Amino acid sequence: MALIVQKFGGSSVSDAEKIKHVAARVLKTQAEGNQVVVVVSAMGDTTDELIDLANSVSSNRGNREMDMLLTAGERISMSVLAMAIQEMGGRAKSFTGYQAGISTDSNHGSARISKIEPTRIKETLADGEIAIVAGFQGFSFQTGDVTTLGRGGSDTTAVALAAALNADVCEIYSDVDGVYTADPRVVPRAHKLAQIDIDSMLELSSSGAKILYIRAVEFARRHQVPLRVRSTFSLDPGTLVYTNQPGDDVEEPIVSGVAADDTQSKITVIGLPDRPGKAAEIFQIVAEAGANIDMIVQNVSTTENHLSDISFTLIHSDRPKVVEALKAKQDEVGFQSISYDDEIGKLSIVGAGMKTSSGVSAKLFGALARAGINIEMISTSEIRISVVTRADQLKEATRVIHTAFELDSADTAIVYAGTGR
Amino acid sequence: MALIVQKFGGSSVSDAEKIKHVAARVLKTQAEGNQVVVVVSAMGDTTDELIDLANSVSSNRGNREMDMLLTAGERISMSVLAMAIQEMGGRAKSFTGYQAGISTDSNHGSARISKIEPTRIKETLADGEIAIVAGFQGFSFQTGDVTTLGRGGSDTTAVALAAALNADVCEIYSDVDGVYTADPRVVPRAHKLAQIDIDSMLELSSSGAKILYIRAVEFARRHQVPLRVRSTFSLDPGTLVYTNQPGDDVEEPIVSGVAADDTQSKITVIGLPDRPGKAAEIFQIVAEAGANIDMIVQNVSTTENHLSDISFTLIHSDRPKVVEALKAKQDEVGFQSISYDDEIGKLSIVGAGMKTSSGVSAKLFGALARAGINIEMISTSEIRISVVTRADQLKEATRVIHTAFELDSADTAIVYAGTGR
Repeated sequence: MALIVQKFGGSSVSDAEKIKHVAARVLKTQAEGNQVVVVVSAMGDTTDELIDLANSVSSNRGNREMDMLLTAGERISMSVLAMAIQEMGGRAKSFTGYQAGISTDSNHGSARISKIEPTRIKETLADGEIAIVAGFQGFSFQTGDVTTLGRGGSDTTAVALAAALNADVCEIYSDVDGVYTADPRVVPRAHKLAQIDIDSMLELSSSGAKILYIRAVEFARRHQVPLRVRSTFSLDPGTLVYTNQPGDDVEEPIVSGVAADDTQSKITVIGLPDRPGKAAEIFQIVAEAGANIDMIVQNVSTTENHLSDISFTLIHSDRPKVVEALKAKQDEVGFQSISYDDEIGKLSIVGAGMKTSSGVSAKLFGALARAGINIEMISTSEIRISVVTRADQLKEATRVIHTAFELDSADTAIVYAGTGR
Repeated sequence: MALIVQKFGGSSVSDAEKIKHVAARVLKTQAEGNQVVVVVSAMGDTTDELIDLANSVSSNRGNREMDMLLTAGERISMSVLAMAIQEMGGRAKSFTGYQAGISTDSNHGSARISKIEPTRIKETLADGEIAIVAGFQGFSFQTGDVTTLGRGGSDTTAVALAAALNADVCEIYSDVDGVYTADPRVVPRAHKLAQIDIDSMLELSSSGAKILYIRAVEFARRHQVPLRVRSTFSLDPGTLVYTNQPGDDVEEPIVSGVAADDTQSKITVIGLPDRPGKAAEIFQIVAEAGANIDMIVQNVSTTENHLSDISFTLIHSDRPKVVEALKAKQDEVGFQSISYDDEIGKLSIVGAGMKTSSGVSAKLFGALARAGINIEMISTSEIRISVVTRADQLKEATRVIHTAFELDSADTAIVYAGTGR
């Protein structure tokens, strides 16, 4: 008997009919001889509607109350799913984050899970029942308050529960039926991967692929939780994200996929004195402004006045506050000026086989050059190469690279829309 | 410094604008030098919408999950109210039933409060903050599950909290600005009472007046919590429901008000053997069917065959199951037949002064007789007389009696619509 955690995103439970569909699917998994824990997001647009309501009375994001408000969403979806399962003759109980034993710190809006003690979940499974757990939410035993885990929180809940319960697999259901070699909306010839190693999945998630949230993938990697990305609306086995060895004895591909990210901006600090410690001062200011940097390029000083430029990328929404923070310290740090560019795109190729293959970057740069696409920044890891291009060239670059690395399928991918929380 | 508990029903917080209005009102109460605890119902039609959602996936009322579902409603209203207060510069925190320390039994859907330990509420008040508490909900520490208190649950929460906090007054806000001598929609000349004793209020509530739920009034009476019934949308002082002595040294009125109830049905058991214990058998069957009886009339046996008839009233929705339960035991108990009547109306007059006044019933019966209204059943308490009439004569009877006891005001009452949960 396997223990399976199944996570259903908001678009999978957006109305009563879809909830019944999920109920039937969960019961089918149980009937096949498995113990089942279900993690659900709020129904469809519930979260956005609750945020709109909050905005209509308040401009301040008082996070304790916002968490109280938003956690109403999963309460609704999970209890209705339990009722739907009961109606079909099954037995199910729903549990809040608190009841599921999910302890977090008290960092409202983006709490970190500190401990999971799923006593009631285990009891429920032992009784032969299906346990339904609210995604996205936890509880701070320090303050006695309800918390939320932030973006992708339901994925994190599912993976963390799977780790705590030592589940055999954590299935992430959405309206996309697996991990593709590229976004099928951009590259119609993208093909679905039967499996991918978790290191590559982590690089894809951090490079802008929206299929799985990076925190959940990190958690799965650390705790060796195998994931399976599947569609709620088909019986396709989806994509296995393996943590150790591939399911079959296959060679790891050189390039598993191509990810495009148009959510970044570039900031360039111009005329920085070329002295030790100056770059550190810049990044200290960025960190104090609360922003995370992605790529960094420092141009070595070639002028007689010993000045250098530093460019870095960060998420678009953080750009204004970081520019402001840097300008406020311009005299103190002693740089000449600052510029920024919101019209950049980041393209990444990811693959575990890149560790042992040569010529990958040459092929990448060659293909982009032939397509007339200029490369503005480059960053690499052992299994990833990322380049920054113009934003309006990003889609074309994605298609060119997908073809260059022979990822194109004979068939056109089926494209679904929307993803869950 | 007074401690005031203010309860706002669903129609008082039905949209963002009304929530802001309530926020301003609560802040005004605090600014006048009071400590304030606010109890809120779910916004407007939220509860009905959640019930509709449940009905769309399930015909079974699995109560644990229903309670989980419905308690999402107050989470939304209370956190948004807290945000609105914060936006206006105030400080407020919202608390679930669990966080407010409201322990109940585990009787889902109609749980009874067993204990209140409002530690966090006291801390919040001591910090100079406004405490907002979810109405209607509690927590069973025995099962670890969320419970709801049933109809009128938010009133009960407010009164129970007021008792536990030893509050100076519990203000019940709705869209009605006080307790009237009769329903102003039926009797346009009904006038608002400045004050009423809690015994009379209890009788009015149990006789069909919908202004306050009977459980909350019982609780207030037992714990000596003064109530004030007020409108959210006016500054009128409303009606004081006093537990001990009237606010001013006034004589208690003979008749405080007239209540009409069209929610009852009458069942008549015909041809019951006139032997000791037979009536008890009937009421045992009714009790086992889970119904509460209101009025009872037994016709003394006058025939030679020593058979009697028993008629009783009960809430309309309980009638089918009780008739069925009685029919199933017809042979065992040995009655001849059963009949029922859903078209009855109950009219009650209530007043603390009735204890010491004679002639009240004569005046009541005389006025009804002159209006051609037949009396089918009568029941009395020390401070109440109730009669059953035809349902279609109930409104006319209410107006006639209101006039006969000189309750008519010179002015026409202002009529609001709807009440909260």
